Order: sequence, then structure tokens, then C-alpha cells
Amino acid sequence: MAVYTHVPAEEIDAFLLRYDAGRLVSAKGIAEGVENSNYLLETTGPDGKGHRYILTLYEKRVDEADLPFFMDLLDHLGARGCLVPRFIADREGKRLQQLSGRPACLIEFLTGISLTEPTPGQARAAGAALGELHKAAQGFSGERRNALDKDGWHALAARCGADFDQIEPGLGARVAQELAFLDAHWPDDLPRSVIHADLFPDNVLMLGDEVTGLIDFYFSCTDIRAYDLAVTHSAWCFSNDGATWFGERATALGEGYSRAHGLSEAERAAFPILCRGAALRFLLTRAFDWINTPADALVTRKDPLAYLRRLDFYASANPVELLGA
Amino acid sequence: MAVYTHVPAEEIDAFLLRYDAGRLVSAKGIAEGVENSNYLLETTGPDGKGHRYILTLYEKRVDEADLPFFMDLLDHLGARGCLVPRFIADREGKRLQQLSGRPACLIEFLTGISLTEPTPGQARAAGAALGELHKAAQGFSGERRNALDKDGWHALAARCGADFDQIEPGLGARVAQELAFLDAHWPDDLPRSVIHADLFPDNVLMLGDEVTGLIDFYFSCTDIRAYDLAVTHSAWCFSNDGATWFGERATALGEGYSRAHGLSEAERAAFPILCRGAALRFLLTRAFDWINTPADALVTRKDPLAYLRRLDFYASANPVELLGA
Repeated sequence: MAVYTHVPAEEIDAFLLRYDAGRLVSAKGIAEGVENSNYLLETTGPDGKGHRYILTLYEKRVDEADLPFFMDLLDHLGARGCLVPRFIADREGKRLQQLSGRPACLIEFLTGISLTEPTPGQARAAGAALGELHKAAQGFSGERRNALDKDGWHALAARCGADFDQIEPGLGARVAQELAFLDAHWPDDLPRSVIHADLFPDNVLMLGDEVTGLIDFYFSCTDIRAYDLAVTHSAWCFSNDGATWFGERATALGEGYSRAHGLSEAERAAFPILCRGAALRFLLTRAFDWINTPADALVTRKDPLAYLRRLDFYASANPVELLGA
Repeated sequence: MAVYTHVPAEEIDAFLLRYDAGRLVSAKGIAEGVENSNYLLETTGPDGKGHRYILTLYEKRVDEADLPFFMDLLDHLGARGCLVPRFIADREGKRLQQLSGRPACLIEFLTGISLTEPTPGQARAAGAALGELHKAAQGFSGERRNALDKDGWHALAARCGADFDQIEPGLGARVAQELAFLDAHWPDDLPRSVIHADLFPDNVLMLGDEVTGLIDFYFSCTDIRAYDLAVTHSAWCFSNDGATWFGERATALGEGYSRAHGLSEAERAAFPILCRGAALRFLLTRAFDWINTPADALVTRKDPLAYLRRLDFYASANPVELLGA
């Protein structure tokens, strides 16, 4: 959420010469996305009419070896009508470059704003966009393991160890109990596909009730398809602190997804478990970051308890209410 | 250099309704300027053709009481042809608003890029733009005290006290000696006017050899006019670390300024002293920040010694070489 690598504007202008993208007229470092450095560029454009791009430099959190998977996925989705930001190839067809000592890519800029308080209509549109994404992902041959799958949760929990209880007394035992529950009940036979795995409102660009872009695919991976809806559910249907549940948003999100893609009986039946998994996944990564980020650092630590509250909600909710009747 | 206050996009869209500016289509937090929060906005525009703006929320470093001075100054300069970002009035004529609990303004967006390694031709254009700014500032009736004038340097040095020598042994004595020299030699009778006071390459937008904008006037104040050229000289004519002096840039900067505005004999004669003052001013603010910023904080501490090197250069330079023959 900051600019980690400062690239001189002269270097960006020279970098653009590799592309059919025009000359640089503005470059602003933007505070966006996972731990990459991002610039919003304006150029004279391939046709002299002006054009915008995102320039991303990959810092430690994205593995360069994963970039071809993301590039191919967004090409596949874009070719099937999904509004996703494609990686742009230079004149020699190269999409992955080096800039200021970092892997770097030029990426399509999409308009739209990220909502903080989505309405049910907007949640419906997000659900539909996720359903369309899952439809478009069919036939994509790329695969990427989800490093934050159930095995990953166990590993993260082990690394947090005794420190959980610094966050809240009893949290370590609660996590262990939940992991045992999920080990016993996790549905391993549901349909799998490439999923976004991080479709927070931040990563959905909208204008009014219309989705104009799905962005930030750097957690995308191969996993249970309905788990993607559970992640989205946990991100869209609560207040930030997890204390308030917005049932109308959830009903609308489910409707949007069901109409666009559909959910099988088995997926519906497993949905409460998938939601518990999604809540635990963000609880664990936030807890790990909380424990490992100094309290006075300038990055905002996201509160793990906001996801403990979601977990508690999912553990005690009436299953039929999670996605509406 | 970060976004300190997160404003929900829905609030920005609602904020824009006060203006004849169109509806929000994109909002990106940008890493720019002094310690404010800045967003680059794209809207449908007053005419439906699309328009960009900067939205600034003022954090602690800018005093709200100073904002009318900055607004009036930029209006005055803009009306006289200077390429400066004007503050935009809402439908009721109000330029200063409140947003997310902060003073906030909508400001013109200017294209152009900030250079890291300016050529002599670009330094000449920057000098000319500064000269034009000083010409346009004539007749501006606003006044603002320079908090970082010589009295301010004394006060800052006193606050750094014994901590100077943590940065470099002997630095405290060197600063005291320089302050005594400037007390004895500072020219108090040179023409004064409103000055930018911080015209680093960061704050000059350019396309090729042409200046397209002068930005970030939050240090502007009333002081010795030629001191503004000295500040610009110290910022444009050295490598970042202060170890390398670029004489051709300096000659070109001086030529550009002289042609656009002119320098009197008295200003030329005092120029080496003004440059020593400029170097000390940035040495002192950087030293103060260095001492008061934890080494592991995520903000980059700027090296005070980069300005000690400039000070050493100015103290021993042949005066006629500073601005060329």
C-alpha cells in the first residue's frame, strides 16, 4: 500500500519506448494493491489521443515465477469478456520486464471506484461478476497451488503459536479447535477451478451498480470454486470490524452469483463450512501480520479480531440465511 | 509521501456534487507532496468529456490558517499566466471544505513529469519559470512569514542541540559556526517578494524541455527573492548526495532566471551567502527529521549530510562560477 521502489520518470519514459504506448506525460505513484509498487501513467497513447496504464514493480510478496500464470489467466479471462486488466506486451511480445532492479509489467488501466459501503444492488453485481469469472475460467489450463489452503492455515497457525494469546486470551485454543473442525468437515469433493481468492470490495471497480473491473489477481489459484464465493461473502457482507452482518447484501450477492453461474446442492450444503474456512484464512494472515509488525510501524495493521467475529457468526448462523432463502 | 487519511470513494463522489466537476469515475491515492493525503481523481467532467483533479486533505504539517494565502497566491499567479494548480471553487464559491474530518480542497491537475536528472536545457527552463513566477508575484498583496528563515534556523539548531553529533561528529560545531557566519553576513536589504521556497525538481512538472507546471506551494512565503533562486540552485545543480556539482546545469539555471527576471549586482554579489543559507536550511530540517524519525520507520529519512556537502561546496566555491560567468 505504498511505493517501495522509486523509479525516475525519465526511466519510465525510456521503458515505454519498448511498447507501442506513446510518450509519458504524467506518472504518479499510487497506494494500491498488495505489496507492489504501482504507478498510474498517462501517455500520449498509441494513437496520440492519450492513454492510461498501470506500471507495477513486483516487490518481495509476489513470486516472479507466478507471473506467467497471472498473465495467462488474465488473457484467458479478458478474451472471454471479463473486465480484467490485461498485461501489455512490448513490441517483441514480452510482457515481463526489468525496471529499477525489479520485475515490472505494464498493465491496462480500468476506470471505476472501489466501494466501502456497497449496497445490495452493488453486492448483486459483484456476485454476478464472480459467477461470470468462474464461467470464463472454464477451460483455462493453468494451475497454481493455493498457498493459503487448509494445509497453509495449519502452517500459519503453528508459526503464530503462543503469540495468538497476545492478541486475545484464548485465541490460540479457538484457532486449534476451528482447525480440528475444518479437518473433520472440509469438503474435498466440490468442483475446483481457478479462483480469485481475494475479491474484497477494494478489488472490484464499479460505476454505480455496474462492475467495470476486477483487479489484483495476485492471490488467484486453483481451489474449491464455491470457496471463492465464501471469501467474497466474508468480505462484502459485514461491517469492517465484523460486528454487523448485512443480510440483504448477502442475499443479493448469492442471487447474483447463482444467476450468473449457479451453485449445486452440494456447494450450498457446504457453504457454511467454506465460510468458516474463509474467515479463518483472513484471521490467520492478519494475526500473523499483527504479531510480526511493530505497533509503531507506519503500515496499518488490520485487526484479526474482525475476522474472529465473522468466524463466530458463521459458526452459529442459520445455514439457509447465509445466501438468503 | 503517503495517504494518511483514507476517504471512501462514495464520500469523494458525494463531495464532488458540491462542484461543477462531474461524477467520480476513478480515485487513486497518490504518494506525493508534503505530508498531505492526495488523491488523483478522474470524473466525467463538467462537460462530460472527462477531467482530472487532485483532491488534497491537509494533515498536521499544513496550517489551515495559511490556506487562504496559498489559494490567493495561486489565483494571482494563474491569472498572470503562470502554470500553477489553482484551487477550485464549489458552486457557492467555497474553495476550502471539510472531508473525513480534515480541511480539504479540490485542485487543478497538471500534466508533466518530475525529473530526477535534469539536463542543462531543463534547468534553464526551470530558471526561466522561477523568474516568470517572481515577475507574476509582483503586486500580490498577501504576506506570509517564512518560518524557516534565519531565526527559524537558529531555533531548529537549538532543538537539535547535542544530537547533531549523532549524525556526524563535529556537526553541531559546524552548524554553530555557519550560523555565526550568516548572522554576520546575511543581506537584509535585498528585494523581497513572495517566493516558492521549495522548488526542487519534484515540484516542477515538465514535458521534454518545457515546464508544464509548478506545484507544491505549501512552503511559499515572503522572503528575499534571490534566496528562492539559491534554494532552486541547491536542489537542481548537485547529485542527490551533494557529492557532485553540475556546473552546466547551474549556468543554464542562472541564464534562464536572468533572462526571465534579471538579477541585480547586489543580488549576484550576495548569491554565495544566499546559497549557504539555502544549504543550511535543508541541512537543518533534514537533521531535525533524522534525529526525530526512528531508523526503522517506513518513511525514508533524507540524508542531512547531502546538504552539508552542498554547504561545504558553497563555502569554498569561486563565487563567479555559481551562476556561470
